[in-house]
Amino acid sequence: MPVKPHPAPSARTRARRLSEKAAYDRDTINAILDAMPVAHVGYVLDGAPVVMPTLQWREGDRIYWHGSSASRMQRKSAAMPVCVTVTLTDGMLLARSGLEHSVNYRCVMVFGTAEVVSDPAAKARHLETMMEQMFPGRWATLRPMTAQELKATAILSLPITEASAKISAGMPADPVEDASWPVWAGVLPIQLTMGAPQPAPDMPAGIDLPDHVSTYRFGHKS
Amino acid sequence: MPVKPHPAPSARTRARRLSEKAAYDRDTINAILDAMPVAHVGYVLDGAPVVMPTLQWREGDRIYWHGSSASRMQRKSAAMPVCVTVTLTDGMLLARSGLEHSVNYRCVMVFGTAEVVSDPAAKARHLETMMEQMFPGRWATLRPMTAQELKATAILSLPITEASAKISAGMPADPVEDASWPVWAGVLPIQLTMGAPQPAPDMPAGIDLPDHVSTYRFGHKS
Repeated sequence: MPVKPHPAPSARTRARRLSEKAAYDRDTINAILDAMPVAHVGYVLDGAPVVMPTLQWREGDRIYWHGSSASRMQRKSAAMPVCVTVTLTDGMLLARSGLEHSVNYRCVMVFGTAEVVSDPAAKARHLETMMEQMFPGRWATLRPMTAQELKATAILSLPITEASAKISAGMPADPVEDASWPVWAGVLPIQLTMGAPQPAPDMPAGIDLPDHVSTYRFGHKS
Repeated sequence: MPVKPHPAPSARTRARRLSEKAAYDRDTINAILDAMPVAHVGYVLDGAPVVMPTLQWREGDRIYWHGSSASRMQRKSAAMPVCVTVTLTDGMLLARSGLEHSVNYRCVMVFGTAEVVSDPAAKARHLETMMEQMFPGRWATLRPMTAQELKATAILSLPITEASAKISAGMPADPVEDASWPVWAGVLPIQLTMGAPQPAPDMPAGIDLPDHVSTYRFGHKS
């Protein structure tokens, strides 16, 4: 599927650092979208921007996110231009001069007009897909979704057609003449790790920790 | 300083979970802003939203962010309405039913019109403050900033007047009748940790790892 390049928002860093580059190929975009469920969705409300965190997931050539049918974001962002941005922060770059300090990151921006998924059966399938991507096998073990719950849930979707990835990696890009400056320079890697699972206190006895919990890693491609 | 409450974007979750609530007090807002340098800045470009990651820092009653004077975001977001959103993802909530699954998070949204810091001396002070908040003592050890570098750097600022925090914490809020459903429920904590510092390969020999590197923690209040 062809991807229409979107003007990269910051040409400066691309020009300055070889290690920082914009990418428009779908494999790169997909890998970032699949690695990080948290997205920031921007929409315009009365002429002003609103940016909200939400969970996104990808199915083929589209991304999806959901929320309450009653929420302002869901109501306002349907059939309106949105920008869905997904960012992974990989490290702090410590350079020899202040303004060469930077961040290693992977970011995808998807632009377009959000579409509402309104068919109940389709909504149910998408929610199951979301859950199964995060916690394989869990959906079938849950208390089944009610029609009322499904009705109260809105699902929005955006095609991955106008999208770009931006990736910054590697070492600080100090000018050669700065390399001898006597200060520590390098990368401080940032990692997302999972703490020990905390069972709900009201859980019946005898329920083992399932594999989909013990192996889950946030911020990684599953 | 009084903070003007902004309508909370999602009233649904507040109504549903006692553990999920909107807050407008400045201590709560400040603590989240101070804990997470990565922000997503939203602005409107030709009627459509654009959401970009950037680093933010707080000085008293304002937040600041910087970028290239030549970048589109810096040019476009000055004197325009922006929304700066800062999110910390604290855990995945696994409930007994699909739609009770959620995320524990802390989020601040700051709304307003971005102002440009144009005085060079003020710009220099703000950049030093940003660095000193992250890496205390480092600024004085760096190769000094040049006038050209300072000129090429734009700093934007927003007062923390129209802002709100939203915090979701605690266990899944399953209805009482779901508690006996035989599935593991609870919280999977998400943590931000630092990997081992990676020194730049072109660094001169004999430079020790400074405290401001070894003690740095991303995603925590310093």
